[in-house]
Amino acid sequence: MNRREPIEYANASPQVRAVFDDIKRSRNVEDVNNFWKYMAHDPATLERTWTSVKEIMSPGALSPLVKEMLYVAVSATNGCGYCIASHGAAARKAGMTEAMFGELMAVVGMANETNRLANGYRVPIDAAFDR
Amino acid sequence: MNRREPIEYANASPQVRAVFDDIKRSRNVEDVNNFWKYMAHDPATLERTWTSVKEIMSPGALSPLVKEMLYVAVSATNGCGYCIASHGAAARKAGMTEAMFGELMAVVGMANETNRLANGYRVPIDAAFDR
Amino acid sequence: MNRREPIEYANASPQVRAVFDDIKRSRNVEDVNNFWKYMAHDPATLERTWTSVKEIMSPGALSPLVKEMLYVAVSATNGCGYCIASHGAAARKAGMTEAMFGELMAVVGMANETNRLANGYRVPIDAAFDR
Amino acid sequence: MNRREPIEYANASPQVRAVFDDIKRSRNVEDVNNFWKYMAHDPATLERTWTSVKEIMSPGALSPLVKEMLYVAVSATNGCGYCIASHGAAARKAGMTEAMFGELMAVVGMANETNRLANGYRVPIDAAFDR
Amino acid sequence: MNRREPIEYANASPQVRAVFDDIKRSRNVEDVNNFWKYMAHDPATLERTWTSVKEIMSPGALSPLVKEMLYVAVSATNGCGYCIASHGAAARKAGMTEAMFGELMAVVGMANETNRLANGYRVPIDAAFDR
Amino acid sequence: MNRREPIEYANASPQVRAVFDDIKRSRNVEDVNNFWKYMAHDPATLERTWTSVKEIMSPGALSPLVKEMLYVAVSATNGCGYCIASHGAAARKAGMTEAMFGELMAVVGMANETNRLANGYRVPIDAAFDR
Repeated sequence: MNRREPIEYANASPQVRAVFDDIKRSRNVEDVNNFWKYMAHDPATLERTWTSVKEIMSPGALSPLVKEMLYVAVSATNGCGYCIASHGAAARKAGMTEAMFGELMAVVGMANETNRLANGYRVPIDAAFDR
Repeated sequence: MNRREPIEYANASPQVRAVFDDIKRSRNVEDVNNFWKYMAHDPATLERTWTSVKEIMSPGALSPLVKEMLYVAVSATNGCGYCIASHGAAARKAGMTEAMFGELMAVVGMANETNRLANGYRVPIDAAFDR
Repeated sequence: MNRREPIEYANASPQVRAVFDDIKRSRNVEDVNNFWKYMAHDPATLERTWTSVKEIMSPGALSPLVKEMLYVAVSATNGCGYCIASHGAAARKAGMTEAMFGELMAVVGMANETNRLANGYRVPIDAAFDR
Repeated sequence: MNRREPIEYANASPQVRAVFDDIKRSRNVEDVNNFWKYMAHDPATLERTWTSVKEIMSPGALSPLVKEMLYVAVSATNGCGYCIASHGAAARKAGMTEAMFGELMAVVGMANETNRLANGYRVPIDAAFDR
Repeated sequence: MNRREPIEYANASPQVRAVFDDIKRSRNVEDVNNFWKYMAHDPATLERTWTSVKEIMSPGALSPLVKEMLYVAVSATNGCGYCIASHGAAARKAGMTEAMFGELMAVVGMANETNRLANGYRVPIDAAFDR
Repeated sequence: MNRREPIEYANASPQVRAVFDDIKRSRNVEDVNNFWKYMAHDPATLERTWTSVKEIMSPGALSPLVKEMLYVAVSATNGCGYCIASHGAAARKAGMTEAMFGELMAVVGMANETNRLANGYRVPIDAAFDR
């Protein structure tokens, strides 16, 4: 199979289909998104990544909404276009309003700015924080 | 004043003192942390940065706790040691438990991983996300 | 010449042509790829970059295959789309199979994850490693 | 337990000890390194990360040596001091000579340079690479 | 209004129009560029960002030309396609010639290379620089 | 020679000494800084890097002062502590005042902020900039 093409369910191996089935069931969607169809070129990575994502993104001390917003914050910082789009959609599905997205991006922008100010001025860590 | 030393209140200009006073009042702290004492070498940046941080980090559609966690997520992604320490402390003050920190870091780690998988496999954005 | 257009051999100066000729001879290709055609807008950078790339990527203690995979690892980490595509192609030409690419990306993803976990938890360097 | 201190085996929960035991057995070492002692503050992340690292870093289509060098390449690109030190040590244990390290760093440096040249000149992907 | 569409002047609120008017007046342009039309989805961020950009990018100890070139250097390092294009255009409008752009990119490339060499070799800061 | 120690002139090979001599002569300094003493562990990289740095950082369409400031901007963005310190010192030697440094950092901070806003809002490039 050409690695530049997504692997669709119809052409997938049983191992890949089992992961796709679990994604569809867990997320209650009719089809998996492109990320998983490309990961399917490496079934070991597909399975390990899905197992980890499923465990990490499920409700815990943090809500799925907060977790998706953290995902967007990291993805915008790294400039990953695919991840901004897919986790932005997931965050909205989990309840992120446009006002929340606006504030999320404002924090991300400011954090990226002050990270560099702290670097450039070589600010030493306060004793109070170093615990 | 030596730029490699923090500017303490006692040695600060009236313009810098006014910002320090507002930070102490707004955050109910006895002293500002090192970041501000170094920014004080450039009063215009000190004032503008504090005004922006104050506006952005105040409660809105997102709580201060969520905003501080987003700040930590960006800082850990960028590897800014000072910012991880200072905003980690702020997040804890705002209510972040160790369990929440653990999940926050798990999401940050996973997002940084899948950002690179999406890049490396050159995954195209699903039509459903491109809206 | 419009800097947004590649400089083709037919329109290139003798200095640029000499570099293009050396690239084609060294790599045994009929034409240079876009990177070089854009670098040609700055002949000094073109010449210096090619000289360095040629020296660095030639066989030594590491094989050309390993070197191209390292290039892909950096490019996926930085999210450079052009570089992922061009050095992915070079790595495949040098013998990278799809199984190798899958493992390469798995390592790149995991390294990007644990880099952030180490940052966020502020893990101190073990004495044993600090030598 | 203070999250700014490593969790030593003597103070670890049975779940954490089980992971530490597996790391020691798999790597044939007497003690785990700091990374794992800090991850132990979040046993779920400790266990998931170790399981993934163990699977990803074991011999496959790529040798452990090549995998460790890829890890160093990513860590140097991200500037993760801990990871450069720990995976540098692992790479040397797996057989990386100083000559190999020198070439590895030369490739990492050059890739980081050309990634930015490709970005800055906005080089479009060659049709031949876009497959 | 659909957040994936730019907000044009005709459809903008009075608060947004006031910012757009100030941008057009300050820059002597007939229309604002896309960045501002998207920021308009969050009027608070639009206003704060424009106020900061206007203050920071105006002539001071550094000329607008040098400031725009610094902006391009950061944007190329981060791989922000939009920012490379828009601030590249602004730098050219402020007087950047193609020769200057060539040297700017050469420095950016080299700095990204040596940043990683310094990281990878774990070079300690010289006492003479630590002041 | 232990790779974690700098290579001093007294212990250097003739090839390394020749590079050190040229650095000292070109920069009119009595000793080279740590970066070069660590690069000396890989004489090929030492020589190639110095040749490139010397060519790139010499006066041209941009002054050495502007070039050093661009270097600082990249280094602060990447968070390379060594590079911020060494090129900050070089920029000051070339004439950068504290006011200039303040403005430089203000631009770097703002660029890092707006890079992420442009990413997160997925702003399309204006037709006017795409030339």
